[in-house]
Parts: sequence; C-alpha cells; structure tokens
Amino acid sequence: MRLLDIAQLRADTPAVAQLIHFNNAGAALMPAPVIDTMTRHIQLEARLGGYEAAAQQSQAIENVYVALARLINARADEIAVIENATRAWDMAFYSLPLRPGDVVLTSTTEYAGNYIPYLQLKQQRGIEVRVIPNDEHGQVSLTALEDLLDDERVALISLPVIATNGGPVQPIEQIGALARAAGVLFLLDACQGVGHLPIDVQKVGCHMLTATSRKYLRGPRGMGFLYVERSLCENLEPAFLDLHAASLLSADHFTVRADARRFENWECNVAAKLGFGAAVHYALAQGIEPMWQRIQQLADYLRQRLLEVPGVTPQDLGVQKSGIVTFTHRHHSASQVQQWLAGQEKRINVSTSTLRSTLLDMQQRDLLEVSRASLHAYNSEAEIDTMIAALRGLPNL
Amino acid sequence: MRLLDIAQLRADTPAVAQLIHFNNAGAALMPAPVIDTMTRHIQLEARLGGYEAAAQQSQAIENVYVALARLINARADEIAVIENATRAWDMAFYSLPLRPGDVVLTSTTEYAGNYIPYLQLKQQRGIEVRVIPNDEHGQVSLTALEDLLDDERVALISLPVIATNGGPVQPIEQIGALARAAGVLFLLDACQGVGHLPIDVQKVGCHMLTATSRKYLRGPRGMGFLYVERSLCENLEPAFLDLHAASLLSADHFTVRADARRFENWECNVAAKLGFGAAVHYALAQGIEPMWQRIQQLADYLRQRLLEVPGVTPQDLGVQKSGIVTFTHRHHSASQVQQWLAGQEKRINVSTSTLRSTLLDMQQRDLLEVSRASLHAYNSEAEIDTMIAALRGLPNL
Repeated sequence: MRLLDIAQLRADTPAVAQLIHFNNAGAALMPAPVIDTMTRHIQLEARLGGYEAAAQQSQAIENVYVALARLINARADEIAVIENATRAWDMAFYSLPLRPGDVVLTSTTEYAGNYIPYLQLKQQRGIEVRVIPNDEHGQVSLTALEDLLDDERVALISLPVIATNGGPVQPIEQIGALARAAGVLFLLDACQGVGHLPIDVQKVGCHMLTATSRKYLRGPRGMGFLYVERSLCENLEPAFLDLHAASLLSADHFTVRADARRFENWECNVAAKLGFGAAVHYALAQGIEPMWQRIQQLADYLRQRLLEVPGVTPQDLGVQKSGIVTFTHRHHSASQVQQWLAGQEKRINVSTSTLRSTLLDMQQRDLLEVSRASLHAYNSEAEIDTMIAALRGLPNL
Repeated sequence: MRLLDIAQLRADTPAVAQLIHFNNAGAALMPAPVIDTMTRHIQLEARLGGYEAAAQQSQAIENVYVALARLINARADEIAVIENATRAWDMAFYSLPLRPGDVVLTSTTEYAGNYIPYLQLKQQRGIEVRVIPNDEHGQVSLTALEDLLDDERVALISLPVIATNGGPVQPIEQIGALARAAGVLFLLDACQGVGHLPIDVQKVGCHMLTATSRKYLRGPRGMGFLYVERSLCENLEPAFLDLHAASLLSADHFTVRADARRFENWECNVAAKLGFGAAVHYALAQGIEPMWQRIQQLADYLRQRLLEVPGVTPQDLGVQKSGIVTFTHRHHSASQVQQWLAGQEKRINVSTSTLRSTLLDMQQRDLLEVSRASLHAYNSEAEIDTMIAALRGLPNL
C-alpha cells in the first residue's frame, strides 16, 4: 500500500496553521492545486473571454470526466458533471418513469432532502415509500431488505452510503447484489462517500450514483456529478432537456444524446468544473484507500478520546463507521458546542446536524441534534487532542 | 441622463488592450470588481472553510437578491438565484401545471433549447405548441397574437426578448399587456436582455422572467436567476424539491417555502454568486439606460459600416434592434469569418450562430448560419473600425 505524505497534505492546505477544520462533511478545505486551477481559469476568462477560455481548456474539461470515471471505476461516457449533488440526484430520481403503486425503498439514514422528493412523487404520481428496517447494528437489515424485495411493486432502492449525520457505512455491495438479483434499480447517494472511502460501481452494482465536489473530494462548491450505467442511460429521458442534452431536428422532432451528458445542460461554471477535476486528480494521486485508512484511524482515535470527556456521548452506529464522528453533550446543545469550539484560540470548525436533515433516523434514536466532527486525511491526532482539551474546557452549567 | 465614463469602463476591463471582444452575447468580459470578488471569496474559503466563509458573507449574499430585484423592479423575495439561465427557465417551465390540450405560444425567434422542452411536454403531457407569426418587420405580430389568444386553451406565452442570433427586440410590454388581458401566463426569457436594455417587470407584466449572469450583465459563468411574481410563486410547486426549497415535518408531510427561493436548491458556488452580485452592482452603478444608449449607437455604427464591406449582408430584422449584430458573407462561412477575425494581430472575438440554436427563425429566413458580433458599452468605434478593416482583408476565394 502506498504511504500518505501527511506533511505534504498539510502543506497543500495552508489554513491548517490557523484552524482545525473538522467540517469536511460540510465542505472540506480545498488543497492548493484546486485553488490555483480555479483562480487561473478565472484569470484566463478575464484575458480571453469566457467561451474562448473554455475552448482553450477543452481537453482539460474532458479530463474531468476521465478522472471521475477512474475514481469510481466507470466509463467516461457514464458521467455527467452537474451543478451540485442535489441537482445530480434530482436529474436521476425525477427522470425515472415511476408509476402509481411503484414502491421506493430507502433507509432510516436517508437525507430529508431526498425524502421530500419521494413524498412529492407520492402526492403527484401515487408512488409508495417504504423504509428498510435496521439490523441490530443500526444499519440496513439485509434480511429485511430481502423480504421487502419480494413485493414485485418495488421499483427502486435509493439510499445514502453514509448519512449526513454520520452513522453506519451501509453495506452497499450486499444491497447492490440484492437489487440486481431482484431486477430493481439502485440509486446510490454517495455525497458523503466519494473521496471518503473506495467506491467501485462495478462492485456495488448500483445503476446510478451521485456525489458532490465540496465534501470528501475537497473540490469547489457548486459542482457535483452523476453516474448512470450506460444501458440504463440510453433508456432514461431526462426530466429537463436543453440544447446540450438534445438536438432539435425539425419543428416537431428532437433527439436526445446517448451518453450521460444528456443529464447535463449547456452552461456551467467552467472554473469550478476544472477545479473539481483538479480535486479528483489530487485525490487519485494520494490514493483513496490510504486516505480511507487514515480517516478511520483518526475517527477511531477521536471516538475513543471523546469517551474521556465528561458529559459527552458518541452517537455513531454501524459495523463500519466513517470519518464523520457525531456526539452529544449532556449539558450543552450542539450549537453551543460548535460556537465554543469556533471561539478557541486555534479555531475549531465542527458543525451541527439537526432533526431537520435526517428526520427518520433522529426520531428513531430520540435525538434532536448532534455535534458533527468530520475528519479528513489531512487532519491530525494533535488536532484531535486540541479539540478534546477544548471540549474539556466547556464551562460547567 | 448620467454620462458613461467609457475610459473607466475600459480600464475596468484590462483585456481590451489585447483583444476586441464582440462576443458579449456568449460571455462578456468580466470587469475587475467581479474578478476580485470571486478571487477574494475563493481565498476566504481556503482560509476559513466553505460554509464558514459563506456564513461570514451572509449579508453580501442577501444583497445579491436585493440588487437583482432592483435591476428589474421586482421584490427580493421574487428572485431565485439559480445555477444558470437554462435551469432557471427549466424550473419555471417544468413547474407549470400544463395539462393535455393546453397551448403554449412562442415566437419564431425562440431558442431551440426552450423549444425542445415544449416538444417534450407535447409528447409527455399532450400540450400543443403554436408559433406566433411575425409582422412585416420580422417581429411578433401583435394582431396575430391577439387572434391566437382567442383560443381559451392558451395557457402560456413563452418567448425570448432578444434571440441568441440577434434580430428584433420583441415588443414585450405590448405582449405582456395582451397576456394580462387574456389571463394567460407570460414567461419571458431575458437571457440576452437583462443588462442589455432596461427591463421592468412591472411594465412588462410578465409572470416569470429568467436571465443569465455571463452575458450582458458581465458576471461569472454558471449563474442565473429566475423572477416569479409573488402571487404566482406561492401556487407553483417546483418540479424539483430539496431541503432548501422545502422542510420535512414528519415521515408523511413536507412544506414548501413561500418565496421564490423555493426554486433554488441548497448548494451553490458561493464565489460565483457573489461575483454575480458584484456584476449587478457594477451594471447598476453605470446605469442600464446609458449603457443601452451606447450599445445601440455602437450597433448602428457597426451595421452601417458592414454595408461598406463587399460580400457582407447584415441580417437583423425588427423595428428595434439590439447590440447583437449578425451578418453573412457571400464567400465565407461564419466559422471562417470567426477564425479569420480571431487570427488577427488584435484578436477579434465574434461567434457563429447556427440553424441548430434558432431553427424556426433560420429556416424561415433560409439561413444556415450567421456571424454574430455582440457589442457592449465598453466596446468602441475604434474597435469596430478595426473589425471592418479585418473583414475587408478576408482573402478572395
């Protein structure tokens, strides 16, 4: 296994000298090559014009697709680069020809932003939403899923590999195998997963996958992508069409392009797209597997050290946990914890996950909110020690 | 009337020393305050983290809505800032509850990227598309429109104020008055209009308007906006929903926010959004009306001088023409003209508009393509003279 050069990772991230960034599940700190790529392209646009600059960078733009395909073991023509993971997911979900009575299966860990579209299509088209029960470890029960798949009305399994509020890494390869065996589509929300841990769409067997640039891939905000398996892609008419996705042949006829770019539209922020590409190249150069090993080490260390802090309870479930570490404090709300940590001399960025984002899971666990410290490979044990000391310093109420 | 400071406009656009940019209808050159705003925010994200930087700039983000509202005489809560004008238009059009038999009226100048969605809903929902005939000046015939509106099945008028391939500035205030009188919705595609000429939604009476950042507003690529009149907005459920547009109240219920941001989604490129705001502030500071006066002067001058060039025919129709000047050359294709001009010592950026983008109009006029020189207020007569000389130098075939 390749060894990570932690000193280099940190040198590429100059802000770590001033702050401790444990909000990588919100938006990670971008490494220098990403910043440089974006800044250079904006300058190029100012010098040449927006379209003229894009034309000059056309090969680099193509390389974004190649890099994303390599990242998840797909083909470049199965990748659409979209404004963000939300719209990437929307373009997948809303394009599915779901009919009255069709059943969508999801997990308790589903993001409320995806669950609302299920309810919208329940109202609009009469689909049905069912939540797969968890097993004793708090992750999707494969036995329960198998039972649910007996119903021939199940048309789709749609769930996140890792929830926004931490919890288990779902057993996506087993879920994918069950989906394939049942002939049911599998849409994987890998927003918190891509760049975080190795995800191979051939092994997972998902038909569609969506993810963002700004989280564990450390790319710019306002970028995401959609993977659609080629054979599905050709049969899935996008919910929205434009002149990039389709061509007008006559006043009565149009044709939709064959590749996954049918889910894109003509316009994009080219600087951010190239920055996204730089982020993927950077991640591939480090190696996803060694970063994942380090993220797990750091997260294990943080979870262990949190046990030493009076009043703190770690809150992550699952056999396989991720770099997103959540906890509650007996005497302080999550927003108080966030504010306290941000106010330290060495500013510590954590975030707050509320009921609002993951309603089903939080209600099931009787939680209103959790503090979320999401770690990346460029973080360090020393930073964790500083955070633990800061948590110990929380005023007694 | 305020006087434009042309020297300052050009000083804010350093690239004019090296090139002549007549591709403002593609993407204009961004003025220095736009570049600076974006670059500064990307640096802030690198220093603080993406969410933490956005939190620090929350007031500046709100000001983008205020500035856009001021620009078109709307209310800030009637504005959604969206990834681009295409997706802004999609969120408006695809959210309309169009039913089988409903008729959409459009113009011959419609963008093929909007026309394809009409055909898609014709296939999917059985709507009907009718093209309003032109009058003797080549613009929407108001008499013909009035006749078409007699059919009670007309549900929507949807057309661009200025086509991507130039042509007339459509009489949008008269069209809006007819739409209001008939109780028909009016969706105005102002992609080429906003920042180009004054557009006041109160005077136009359109119910929805979409536009982009990158063209006549001189903002960054990958940004656009949607205006939806407040009373309509509350009754229009967005085609896509997420956790920014809606809130999940229970496993069975959600609620959609009341303002136009129901058409947005949670994630965006904040640097580009702030850059867009800087562009709007810059345009407002110059004054849209004086820029429009200058744009017309320059375009008139260019059209007049084009008549001097052997083999060149200006191609714009309409009573009121815009800053988009189109022409054909008897001996050279538009792409040859574009390449020739770009290859001059003082590089001249023009573009090519093909049949593909405005099929109905080009077929009606028996054109396959036109050269497009789109002028902005920062351009100059001297630049036009240089282009005319360059056109005269085109090799004889």
